[in-house]
Amino acid sequence: MARVLTPRAEDFPRWYQDVIAKAELADNGPVRGTMVIRPAGYAIWERMQSDMDGRIKAAGAQNAYFPLFIPESYLRREAEHVEGFSPELAVVTHGGGKQLAEPIVVRPTSETVIGEFMAKWVSSYRDLPLLLNQWANVVRWELRPRLFLRTSEFLWQEGHTAHATEEDARAYARGILHDVYEDFMRQMLAIPVVVGRKTVRERFAGATSTYTLEGMMGDAKALQMGTSHELGQNFAKAFDIVFSSAEGRQEHAWTTSWGTSTRMLGGLIMAHGDDNGLRVPPRLAPIQAHVMIVKDGEGVAAEAAKIRDALRDAGIRVGFDDRVDTPFGRRAVDAELKGYPVRIEVGPRDLAAGNVVVVRRIAGTKTPTPVTGVVSAVTAALAEDQQALYDEALARRESHTVDVSNVDAAIEVAATGWARVPWSAIGAEGEAKANAQGVTVRCL
Amino acid sequence: MARVLTPRAEDFPRWYQDVIAKAELADNGPVRGTMVIRPAGYAIWERMQSDMDGRIKAAGAQNAYFPLFIPESYLRREAEHVEGFSPELAVVTHGGGKQLAEPIVVRPTSETVIGEFMAKWVSSYRDLPLLLNQWANVVRWELRPRLFLRTSEFLWQEGHTAHATEEDARAYARGILHDVYEDFMRQMLAIPVVVGRKTVRERFAGATSTYTLEGMMGDAKALQMGTSHELGQNFAKAFDIVFSSAEGRQEHAWTTSWGTSTRMLGGLIMAHGDDNGLRVPPRLAPIQAHVMIVKDGEGVAAEAAKIRDALRDAGIRVGFDDRVDTPFGRRAVDAELKGYPVRIEVGPRDLAAGNVVVVRRIAGTKTPTPVTGVVSAVTAALAEDQQALYDEALARRESHTVDVSNVDAAIEVAATGWARVPWSAIGAEGEAKANAQGVTVRCL
Ligand SMILES: [Zn+2]
Ligand SMILES: [Zn+2]
Repeated sequence: MARVLTPRAEDFPRWYQDVIAKAELADNGPVRGTMVIRPAGYAIWERMQSDMDGRIKAAGAQNAYFPLFIPESYLRREAEHVEGFSPELAVVTHGGGKQLAEPIVVRPTSETVIGEFMAKWVSSYRDLPLLLNQWANVVRWELRPRLFLRTSEFLWQEGHTAHATEEDARAYARGILHDVYEDFMRQMLAIPVVVGRKTVRERFAGATSTYTLEGMMGDAKALQMGTSHELGQNFAKAFDIVFSSAEGRQEHAWTTSWGTSTRMLGGLIMAHGDDNGLRVPPRLAPIQAHVMIVKDGEGVAAEAAKIRDALRDAGIRVGFDDRVDTPFGRRAVDAELKGYPVRIEVGPRDLAAGNVVVVRRIAGTKTPTPVTGVVSAVTAALAEDQQALYDEALARRESHTVDVSNVDAAIEVAATGWARVPWSAIGAEGEAKANAQGVTVRCL
Repeated sequence: MARVLTPRAEDFPRWYQDVIAKAELADNGPVRGTMVIRPAGYAIWERMQSDMDGRIKAAGAQNAYFPLFIPESYLRREAEHVEGFSPELAVVTHGGGKQLAEPIVVRPTSETVIGEFMAKWVSSYRDLPLLLNQWANVVRWELRPRLFLRTSEFLWQEGHTAHATEEDARAYARGILHDVYEDFMRQMLAIPVVVGRKTVRERFAGATSTYTLEGMMGDAKALQMGTSHELGQNFAKAFDIVFSSAEGRQEHAWTTSWGTSTRMLGGLIMAHGDDNGLRVPPRLAPIQAHVMIVKDGEGVAAEAAKIRDALRDAGIRVGFDDRVDTPFGRRAVDAELKGYPVRIEVGPRDLAAGNVVVVRRIAGTKTPTPVTGVVSAVTAALAEDQQALYDEALARRESHTVDVSNVDAAIEVAATGWARVPWSAIGAEGEAKANAQGVTVRCL
């Protein structure tokens, strides 16, 4: 078989690009740094979105939509932010056929607009907590783009909440961190993220605490999969989010913000992909079982359709491939690349013996299975392989994490994995030293 | 009771603005022409989206995502379009902290980029039909903005498909028109849209046929609720979407495009709203039954919670209002404004007699109902009132549509409703005359 992908061991970044192209997940857009998310990639994003959206709603937040365009003056309000974003901004100077009096910025986040409206909508403690979430595109100019990981435009959700007390805000930021993000990443993405706090140096501008979720990728490097921030009263003071308390005092609200993005798609590819392509966790997969007609023959198409319907009736998300005029080998390679958890190969020879072949992408097995046993075999495989993928990622994380006791050892270990080291042995000074070597303190 | 809204008869556009503000559906964004869709409005949009998305997928189309930014040169390719859009474009001239070599346009539609990628993805008849849909924000500079109806940024779905034959393209454009759009608008939005073809004059640039869905609003005016276009081979020729046929010939594909937007929210408000506020069709409503505690009393809160849970268990989408420290009258006005189809008022006096009060927003009835009968009363009310809302809209459309036989009569009738007139009696000349009087031929 011809080599389809660059092997991971040879060139991991190249392998990553190959998977995205060959599995038809995404493509570069015509404007540098932008991306086209193709149907196979977008279907995975939709599944991520819909599961996470349910969790966000269960946490009490409501979705809303804030404008793409922000007056440039808004971003000057918060000095820290302008410094952070300025070179990242896309600026609209013409609209309606003429030059604009005030330039408009394409949102790098909706934080400032949401702050403005929160200030309008909050006046009494009865209006709190105010729990908002938005699914939207945002733009941050990217000079070294990489599909899904760093693109000038990306899709994300950003949550912004305002609370009457610090305790309530803290509990909410942590609830999102653990019950929404961590649980989603472990249960759906099968990625055993490490969850903790960022150092002061790595913290989000304006935050009093930044929590992060870090996943270990196939090259043993860390990827930040999401963040949740406590903003204390800093944000409320910048935007005048003030409420009258039950006792009639005027107080600043306590706010949080939290976000995840299409970057999770990059994390998914790098955490679970292998040299044959993507491997999608069964619970997340838009197509869990892919029924393929190997070649035509008496009753083959009818039997394949029956199996498809039986799987569907059992609540399994099913794909169907009857393109018998395309060589089967090519279609099988494509199914491997796309990472469907299970495929069911239906061909005349096996069928004559009452069998089909059940191929498990994650377990790597090919098992002739009686037609009558397909639904139960697939159901069992999906559950087992969800767990197997998680276990494999966990084993890698553990084998690539080393306990060390000082900065120098940590820097050495970071060349091939993660180092776990007491913060007392590092401190802000050790962190600066590690940073100078290209090593970051990811998570406390 | 103080007047909450401007009555429709007094000033319909003003009433429309009042409903949007008082029902907390949307707000103007800081950049002129943009909008903030508030949670109460966005929840309705999400329900529209999810129902329609299911229909679009059932029609075989796959979702994808194309970039927000388009090189300016793309819009020069298709002369007709530049003329159409130029004053509507928002142009980005700065990114990454400096002036861009080529200006970038914020997409007014993704048509040109999708055309470009279709040309890449299609090479053989085996790649057809290619059925794509996108949910996204688009920007068209608007000098006289009105929330939901005409905003500089709006949310929409745009479908783009390529087919091997004209018949297939035509059948698909019409399938979307009838099975997706018309059925959705009648069944979910309870709007008896009139469906037909646009005149050559009103047709979309580049289309060989433009189909439209027109709804009659509360002021007896028409609102275009969606369109579906056959583009013949025009679009494929502009973008070089070429395939080799089964016979090995190189042919241009036949394409379609079709779209609906947040404008449907404006249509919903204007089609069904009354002088007390919004009325949301039960099937669409994010909250179908709103359980309200009138005032505290022994066992009231517990009973209200039990009713809420029983309704939820019956598959009804339920809201819950236990804010007894806010006067009940104010909360009732708010519930009217938001248009919840049914509310269940739970108070100590009625409860002592084993009753709650079921208030139907559409039927306008208030009925003391035994607690044990609430679920069945609500279930019946939701079904009846979905139909009642449709019937009412249909009756208005019929009573405001007059058959006439010539242009002059049509122009006269259009002052207070719709005129139905044989096209043979109008023709292109009659159309020009009508247009001069501010009357348009909406639908053939
Ligand atoms: Zn901030
Ligand atoms: Zn065109």
